[in-house]
Amino acid sequence: MSGPGGFADDAVPGGLGKVAIVGAGQVGTMLGIALTGADHEHGVAEVALFDRDADTARASLDRRAGHRVADDLRDALSADIVVLAVPVDEIVALLESHGGDVRPGALVIDTGSAKTAVVDAMRRTVPVEAHALGGHPMAGTATPGPSGAQPDLLAGAPFVLTPVRDDPEAMRLGRALASAVGARPVAMAADEHDRVIAWTSHLPHAMSFALAAAVGRLPDSVDEVRSLIAGGYRGATRLATGDPAMIAGFLGANAAEVGAAIDGLCAELSGLRDALPHRQRLAEMLATGRAARGALA
Amino acid sequence: MSGPGGFADDAVPGGLGKVAIVGAGQVGTMLGIALTGADHEHGVAEVALFDRDADTARASLDRRAGHRVADDLRDALSADIVVLAVPVDEIVALLESHGGDVRPGALVIDTGSAKTAVVDAMRRTVPVEAHALGGHPMAGTATPGPSGAQPDLLAGAPFVLTPVRDDPEAMRLGRALASAVGARPVAMAADEHDRVIAWTSHLPHAMSFALAAAVGRLPDSVDEVRSLIAGGYRGATRLATGDPAMIAGFLGANAAEVGAAIDGLCAELSGLRDALPHRQRLAEMLATGRAARGALA
Repeated sequence: MSGPGGFADDAVPGGLGKVAIVGAGQVGTMLGIALTGADHEHGVAEVALFDRDADTARASLDRRAGHRVADDLRDALSADIVVLAVPVDEIVALLESHGGDVRPGALVIDTGSAKTAVVDAMRRTVPVEAHALGGHPMAGTATPGPSGAQPDLLAGAPFVLTPVRDDPEAMRLGRALASAVGARPVAMAADEHDRVIAWTSHLPHAMSFALAAAVGRLPDSVDEVRSLIAGGYRGATRLATGDPAMIAGFLGANAAEVGAAIDGLCAELSGLRDALPHRQRLAEMLATGRAARGALA
Repeated sequence: MSGPGGFADDAVPGGLGKVAIVGAGQVGTMLGIALTGADHEHGVAEVALFDRDADTARASLDRRAGHRVADDLRDALSADIVVLAVPVDEIVALLESHGGDVRPGALVIDTGSAKTAVVDAMRRTVPVEAHALGGHPMAGTATPGPSGAQPDLLAGAPFVLTPVRDDPEAMRLGRALASAVGARPVAMAADEHDRVIAWTSHLPHAMSFALAAAVGRLPDSVDEVRSLIAGGYRGATRLATGDPAMIAGFLGANAAEVGAAIDGLCAELSGLRDALPHRQRLAEMLATGRAARGALA
């Protein structure tokens, strides 16, 4: 695609060039809106949108998430920066089928919330002449699709970048992309990301759904339970309003770490249960949790 | 206290008469503000505030939660309606030491979030010539003390009333009190309340503190974990900002039901963990949780 009439002629030196977003759902649309509105210095020459669902691509374009809809996946994969913004399962499948098509010098990056599976697939499939990087922009809403995109959430949000190979140019491009959308690049090993995110995001999702399902199975009539539902339940099950297929995707892609976090949480809860008859000890355990929360959130 | 100059002379027939609030913290202050502002028809002749901490009582009075500070506990216990708005442990202790002092014809009611322990203590200690009722106004904030009181949260909120004896007059007075503060009276057996509330309020508290404590023990440096903390963690640990002593009080007072709920949640989480490698089954389990949440919240 370089040469006469191609990207290389009108590029901002060191800029991002032509960007393609594969998957024009909530995350792809959020990134696309931020990229089409990025300052000139970031050198975004074009944003092309691809989605296997044509209506989704058009709805994303209507939100100004790109300059055009890509002709096909092959067109999208010919960009300088290819952003895979589909559910984690599909990212891995896309890499298995098309990772070899990323052109020399281009960057392929994803947006999934589980990174080890993606980075492993990138290492297996993307040519060494191209650049590959795991990415996780930590911003989003519970509403799927282009209508759920809120690009203002990217401002200052962590955009985790996980290396695939020893490739400083991949990391430079990843940082440039994260900065262009207003986020804060955070470099981290994929396995480290997955272990921490299992606790801070994936486990909270699992807890929400588990609580909602268990309360739904209480033998009381819905009316009796509903009359006792206050803010605690609503807040604790808020994440259980999310898309089950998408959430199953990232929980499953991070199965080992999520499983360990579930076991760890239940060990912690078991400790609280044992302390229930011992008021002072129980209060001390709760105070430990409160202090930890205060140090982090 | 009836007779010349006493309450009975200026009472609204069937009204609440003189109310005393024992414990002028967040809940007591919230109820007091609502009662001093209640319509004339509810027949609130006076609201007296008692707190073993004189500064708390004064701060509550400053928020117009009462007409005066009670001289002492004995003065408070001579009211027509005595509201025990202290932590659950202290409610039981107060009943053990002073339940026998509630005067004939008067109602003693509490505000604790665990009801079986309170109702049992009332049955043991309050004279049969008086009226007793367990109460749980399901409204409040995470901020303790008079400054945390938000009486507008009472509007339409469930105010659970749990019978102590077969005493229609106690229930009539309880309903009148709940209505006077703008809440919605909900009659329910104490053990039924405790079982449902273990799931919808107490367990969410335990989950929040357990998650916060476990994340706090991750071997990563605080900075690394903090960089990956997004809305999921913040929301899931919001309840862990509450007062450890107060929360230990209600978890401990409802120990059997909270323990069963912890076991039930961990069984549910264990089911999710087993399904992690089976994407379709996992998504179906999550969809069950989402549907249950949709039916209730």
